[in-house]
Amino acid sequence: MTACNTIVGSIDNSVLNFTVGKDPLLDMNLVAVDCIGSVAHAKMLSCLDLKNELFSDTDFAAIREELVAIISDADFNILVEDQDVHMAVESRLTDKLGYLGKKIHTGRSRNDQVALDLRLYGKEQLLCVMQLCLNLAKGLLKFAKANEEVPMVGRTHLQPAMPSSVGLWASCYAEGLLDDFILLKSAYEFNDRCPLGSAAGYGVPLNIDRHLTSDLLGFAEPIQNVMYASNSRGKCESVILSALSQIMTNLSRLAQDLILFSMPEFNYFSIPKEYCTGSSIMPQKSNPDVCELIRSKAAKVHGYATIARDVVTCLPGGYNRDLQEIKEPFMEGVAITESCLDIMCRLVEKLEANEEALYAGFSSGVFATDKALEFVVDGMPFREAYDKVKGMLSELENMDIKESIMNKKHFGAAMGLDFELYAKCVDEKQAFIDGLKSCYCGKISDLLGMEYRI
Amino acid sequence: MTACNTIVGSIDNSVLNFTVGKDPLLDMNLVAVDCIGSVAHAKMLSCLDLKNELFSDTDFAAIREELVAIISDADFNILVEDQDVHMAVESRLTDKLGYLGKKIHTGRSRNDQVALDLRLYGKEQLLCVMQLCLNLAKGLLKFAKANEEVPMVGRTHLQPAMPSSVGLWASCYAEGLLDDFILLKSAYEFNDRCPLGSAAGYGVPLNIDRHLTSDLLGFAEPIQNVMYASNSRGKCESVILSALSQIMTNLSRLAQDLILFSMPEFNYFSIPKEYCTGSSIMPQKSNPDVCELIRSKAAKVHGYATIARDVVTCLPGGYNRDLQEIKEPFMEGVAITESCLDIMCRLVEKLEANEEALYAGFSSGVFATDKALEFVVDGMPFREAYDKVKGMLSELENMDIKESIMNKKHFGAAMGLDFELYAKCVDEKQAFIDGLKSCYCGKISDLLGMEYRI
Amino acid sequence: MTACNTIVGSIDNSVLNFTVGKDPLLDMNLVAVDCIGSVAHAKMLSCLDLKNELFSDTDFAAIREELVAIISDADFNILVEDQDVHMAVESRLTDKLGYLGKKIHTGRSRNDQVALDLRLYGKEQLLCVMQLCLNLAKGLLKFAKANEEVPMVGRTHLQPAMPSSVGLWASCYAEGLLDDFILLKSAYEFNDRCPLGSAAGYGVPLNIDRHLTSDLLGFAEPIQNVMYASNSRGKCESVILSALSQIMTNLSRLAQDLILFSMPEFNYFSIPKEYCTGSSIMPQKSNPDVCELIRSKAAKVHGYATIARDVVTCLPGGYNRDLQEIKEPFMEGVAITESCLDIMCRLVEKLEANEEALYAGFSSGVFATDKALEFVVDGMPFREAYDKVKGMLSELENMDIKESIMNKKHFGAAMGLDFELYAKCVDEKQAFIDGLKSCYCGKISDLLGMEYRI
Amino acid sequence: MTACNTIVGSIDNSVLNFTVGKDPLLDMNLVAVDCIGSVAHAKMLSCLDLKNELFSDTDFAAIREELVAIISDADFNILVEDQDVHMAVESRLTDKLGYLGKKIHTGRSRNDQVALDLRLYGKEQLLCVMQLCLNLAKGLLKFAKANEEVPMVGRTHLQPAMPSSVGLWASCYAEGLLDDFILLKSAYEFNDRCPLGSAAGYGVPLNIDRHLTSDLLGFAEPIQNVMYASNSRGKCESVILSALSQIMTNLSRLAQDLILFSMPEFNYFSIPKEYCTGSSIMPQKSNPDVCELIRSKAAKVHGYATIARDVVTCLPGGYNRDLQEIKEPFMEGVAITESCLDIMCRLVEKLEANEEALYAGFSSGVFATDKALEFVVDGMPFREAYDKVKGMLSELENMDIKESIMNKKHFGAAMGLDFELYAKCVDEKQAFIDGLKSCYCGKISDLLGMEYRI
Repeated sequence: MTACNTIVGSIDNSVLNFTVGKDPLLDMNLVAVDCIGSVAHAKMLSCLDLKNELFSDTDFAAIREELVAIISDADFNILVEDQDVHMAVESRLTDKLGYLGKKIHTGRSRNDQVALDLRLYGKEQLLCVMQLCLNLAKGLLKFAKANEEVPMVGRTHLQPAMPSSVGLWASCYAEGLLDDFILLKSAYEFNDRCPLGSAAGYGVPLNIDRHLTSDLLGFAEPIQNVMYASNSRGKCESVILSALSQIMTNLSRLAQDLILFSMPEFNYFSIPKEYCTGSSIMPQKSNPDVCELIRSKAAKVHGYATIARDVVTCLPGGYNRDLQEIKEPFMEGVAITESCLDIMCRLVEKLEANEEALYAGFSSGVFATDKALEFVVDGMPFREAYDKVKGMLSELENMDIKESIMNKKHFGAAMGLDFELYAKCVDEKQAFIDGLKSCYCGKISDLLGMEYRI
Repeated sequence: MTACNTIVGSIDNSVLNFTVGKDPLLDMNLVAVDCIGSVAHAKMLSCLDLKNELFSDTDFAAIREELVAIISDADFNILVEDQDVHMAVESRLTDKLGYLGKKIHTGRSRNDQVALDLRLYGKEQLLCVMQLCLNLAKGLLKFAKANEEVPMVGRTHLQPAMPSSVGLWASCYAEGLLDDFILLKSAYEFNDRCPLGSAAGYGVPLNIDRHLTSDLLGFAEPIQNVMYASNSRGKCESVILSALSQIMTNLSRLAQDLILFSMPEFNYFSIPKEYCTGSSIMPQKSNPDVCELIRSKAAKVHGYATIARDVVTCLPGGYNRDLQEIKEPFMEGVAITESCLDIMCRLVEKLEANEEALYAGFSSGVFATDKALEFVVDGMPFREAYDKVKGMLSELENMDIKESIMNKKHFGAAMGLDFELYAKCVDEKQAFIDGLKSCYCGKISDLLGMEYRI
Repeated sequence: MTACNTIVGSIDNSVLNFTVGKDPLLDMNLVAVDCIGSVAHAKMLSCLDLKNELFSDTDFAAIREELVAIISDADFNILVEDQDVHMAVESRLTDKLGYLGKKIHTGRSRNDQVALDLRLYGKEQLLCVMQLCLNLAKGLLKFAKANEEVPMVGRTHLQPAMPSSVGLWASCYAEGLLDDFILLKSAYEFNDRCPLGSAAGYGVPLNIDRHLTSDLLGFAEPIQNVMYASNSRGKCESVILSALSQIMTNLSRLAQDLILFSMPEFNYFSIPKEYCTGSSIMPQKSNPDVCELIRSKAAKVHGYATIARDVVTCLPGGYNRDLQEIKEPFMEGVAITESCLDIMCRLVEKLEANEEALYAGFSSGVFATDKALEFVVDGMPFREAYDKVKGMLSELENMDIKESIMNKKHFGAAMGLDFELYAKCVDEKQAFIDGLKSCYCGKISDLLGMEYRI
Repeated sequence: MTACNTIVGSIDNSVLNFTVGKDPLLDMNLVAVDCIGSVAHAKMLSCLDLKNELFSDTDFAAIREELVAIISDADFNILVEDQDVHMAVESRLTDKLGYLGKKIHTGRSRNDQVALDLRLYGKEQLLCVMQLCLNLAKGLLKFAKANEEVPMVGRTHLQPAMPSSVGLWASCYAEGLLDDFILLKSAYEFNDRCPLGSAAGYGVPLNIDRHLTSDLLGFAEPIQNVMYASNSRGKCESVILSALSQIMTNLSRLAQDLILFSMPEFNYFSIPKEYCTGSSIMPQKSNPDVCELIRSKAAKVHGYATIARDVVTCLPGGYNRDLQEIKEPFMEGVAITESCLDIMCRLVEKLEANEEALYAGFSSGVFATDKALEFVVDGMPFREAYDKVKGMLSELENMDIKESIMNKKHFGAAMGLDFELYAKCVDEKQAFIDGLKSCYCGKISDLLGMEYRI
């Protein structure tokens, strides 16, 4: 065992490896946001009214230049000895700028730095998820509109139940995703408060300007209580993962339906060949692997959401090292959700509905409720009509499939889908995303003095 | 095994018991909302333009009268033979009103009935949780304000870290609860759409008016896609439980801190005696049972949230009986969260901070960062100041505790807490709750023709 | 708020309700085992060599008589004021026997009492679960044997893959349950150590004989470390629930297969009508509710197992009140698993395989691997044979279904199932259960002086 | 999008990336066991009695030589195009040995290959975990013995409860780990059955000898039902992770105690400095990071166990691609548990108990139960003695601490710990591990024709 000399002291090497864990790897996702945070922090320090000025305008310009250089330096790396992105960036600044680097950590702690980085990362990723989510909703709505009048047996308990349509089926999942937007929006709002300046959770005896850094970084406002800035770590990731978790549940159900109804016994849908794979032993196989993987990845994101929440449950107040363990499930959960939304969107684009097979799926029982309601229209109380039809099931013949669907005209039924309403909803959400994105990128571009895009 | 004859057919008795499960018990929570839903449904049916009128105005009045009677009938009961609240109410209507009762189920299914009931139940409970959550936040803020200048060692890794205050500690948890409001609000918004009229998930061949029922019941709007009305079951409960889950995490951490810092070795806080219990073997014991139970009940609500989400994950589209199993964790999760918020609120009201013990908890190391920042103010780069103080730790003496806290004046630090901002935030939330409540109760009162309160 | 005077002191009534929770109800499951534990404890105390004898033989006989009376007293009840079964029993003894009742709690605490009760309860329930599990395995094997040669398309990715049989399908689930026995056995072994005499987790300054009570109660041995006797609470329940969780996963998959393959599009299996239920709106429906409920109840038992484990994770050593919250998920998890095993066993008994539909499910692609292996037998390397068949898929014709199955003769394949080996395995397990049961009941009968059966 | 030509067909590149996921990386853990499995499979094929011999003895020798070469080839790599370790190995064999490579996949599928690999991997890792677990138990027992008579306040509800000792505290956690052996053993037994020869879950029309491969690979026996060989995937990993999960719960509680009782307010224990780390802002800090990380990693392993279980819950029978997603949580869960056991073992080796601080922790109330039992010995019924002491708490004085501990002499109490019994238990477990290891390594060494060690 050799010892390792880091900025914060001498640590046993094997212990260093254990405590640092996957941070050098995971923190590569945070290089840009960490530098952005440091620019804002340096800017604020340069405005501080102290008897000895911390940073002159020239100092700040030099620091910003170096931080911007790191952002675009493809070779920037985090070593185990650095422990994390924060130390790696501070080392680089000290190497390049000497005294200025040694001053940059004034009035902050790694605790508020990582809290900030994760909120900026969360913000950027949420915008990405929102867009992917909306794209898939659009794709499903397009598929629904194209197959609006194509009949499909509606099922309950997986048993044939009532006449329905491919349009109803597809827009059902689209509406689910649009509904999930409520959760993505509230996760965004929850995340949109700046923890910087909370230091180790107890502030500092300097008159730092937390509103300024919050504003420079495009946050809605700073978190007030500095201890809560620390206590909200893990919770914030957990809130985001919970929202993603619901999206994944949606996707898992869509995937399940696609797996089931592309079985040859149904053949309702054809999953594009390039989204299927073969078998090493069975030459004839074409398997819906992409859908199966999406189905199971839901359990993974659920698990990650659970980990994030459980790490902070019962944790004593103030920073605890336990929080570090949330980084991986957070980033993995985000990455999985994004990749699943993306691939499902492309799959749906090429999905085909097989009209013939869909028609063939109808049998007489499916029309029983329609029949009962015919009696109701003729004046029979529903419960008697129900009993009457129950007694004549074997006599029921197939009604005209198309006609039956055409009769479901009320709001939200197969022929009562208001696609314009859906389009309006989609447009509003797109405008919402665009607004957030341009506002955020504008702020960061101003701060960095160069165009910043996500 | 004997057979049982229900409205929907003859079922083996032991199978009936298995399938019905705890529904007769759980559904007692839904009696009022089920009747409310039926009034709205009957009203809408009475407006329907059919060649044979379903309900005349007099019919509707009779139905409403009977449904209102059920709501206030303390003896109304649900039998296993009824299976659930919906059948129990339909039976009662048929018993009392004959033909009218047999007509009430026209154009709906138990699927959309229970979906509706759970959304109304969810709405009422969310309003209750919001109020309890706000009450506790108020209580904590009051305690914080009363102890604003009382010092308390701030900890990271549970080790003494920096000077802090009881005010900072208490308002930290208050701010956490106020933050959770974002989640409660979005859960409310998610829940605030009406599933009625989706029937079994595929609508009906009648020209029902889903906007009317939605409006009569005080919903923001109807869910559009009827299949999604069915698919959103479980998801909606899961979204609500996720929000409650975060509240419970907050409470578990507050409870953990209270348990730790009321240990005699700290004695920072005195938990009121009436919230402690004794031991059957140790005569001297006075244990923080209430806090311990809250701590563990977090795991329970987490588990219930997990169940709700997992039951619907990968579930094929359309109604599946699996959904029934979500009722119990949903209702239990709500009840636990409410009781924990309520009792914690009362406990905090009588909580005492022991100033002497809190002062005694300070040791010299706690001031090390303050010392380093003094050097910084004198012009030394932070990293050098840090190293210098690290080399003189044994020489550090206790600084003046009060003065040190007084120096933490920036926004959100011990002496930078903006209680007016908190008060404004509390008031806004109170107004929000009051608005929702009065709007909802107004709508339901109009519908029932009598004052309805929650 | 009124106060309530209990054995262990005066507590605020609303706090009492919160802390006692559902214990009075849940503890009704523990009345018999609590009394059994008290008989053993009293017996041990009567053997203690103290300067003042605690219980004479006559005293012990009186105590035992009263405890046995409680076991068979259908009216015995636990009040909220009693808090739990332990206090209720102690009160009753004190009411009936005066001084003797006030002595019974010597050298023990409610902590080791409840730990003991839950281990006895766990033991009895595990024996019950083992038997139910074995019954279902037997039923599935019987169904498998009866349908040994009935063909069924074997699937991977749910797509038709290779020829298989109903026998293979059904015995697959039977073998899964037999495999789970390993977990039930180890849960039993884990549970089979006596915590009595650990008191509050730190023993007592009396020379109590923990080996004696352990032996009287039929345990393998006492837990040694008294603090571990306390720390193992929750863990023991969690271990048992983990085993049940695996059984439920098995059942969920069997239920899923039954739901899928009883859809009319397959019609491979007919679920007996009395295990299906109807719809309130669709007169034609016959739904596999029992299977759906089993499928979803898996998520419930999983959730309960999670709760039990999470409550104890990170809990400081020694008894904490948090443990109380584990009782409900433990008992619920046990009850659900038992009822699902029981009803599935009865359902399988009447399950029918529809040979015609099963034959009709075969298409040519299913035989592709067989074809490739024919080429291999003729000397072609497998990977070439695979490619060759892949190029001639459209030319493949249906091979003889029965013959193809008959060719799968190696160990464990459709025609290589060794039902005698299964029978031997079943018999061994039955003997194992019978042995444990008779040993345990024998010990308890001796202790109580009357026949005790479970 | 470019296409990629693999052994099993042409797949879209972005889809390939999605479906392959982290397999090329994760499968590096399986290279050795995959080759071992292939040697056994080739050996069995070479014994097969076919009209055209598959492998001569020379063929087999050549195949084995190449597979052994791969095992020790540090440069062996798995490309995305290979998809997984199985294809990578098959490619290499085909490259090097031509026709022989194309024959190796005869009579098996990747499904049974990966099932086999994971069971071999699971076996090797379980042996490793068992040893690490035993090492920690030994370390804790050594610490316990060394501090057998050092007093420590025993706590319930974290409040001082009764006199206890450091020896009791430390051996409590040791006994917990020894108890967990039951779960590790049953996981090992569960895992110890060979799935090879099940092919895609439906066997093959060749007379393969599954008992031979099972025996060559050192398994207890082959899984019988070939479909169950497939269905047990995920379940087997879940069973192993459940056992690890309990170990992690143990560790989390030990870590929690160490964190709490090394706070300066207690100072009962000194965590060795090299297992603590500093702060970037607070020069004085020395934090118990290792313990905090272990505490939180429990939640991670729990999450991984949950994922493994949830992926297979409700999954239709037969292989589904979902199973692939279990590999990562399985391997991560194993790696985390091993590293935590290892580092905790080294930490405990250097742990110090601070006798002075431990004595100072006693206050008079701790002796109340002892006092009550003194009255009992003098003839007073316990409940009266309890009440009497409750009434005189303020008069209670500190009893002699050492003497009080010396009075706890019954089995398992502070002075009743039977360290010889612990030693015997440890020795038995060590012999058990050694036996399994030597048996397994012996079998594999014979198979490979070279010494194999783990």
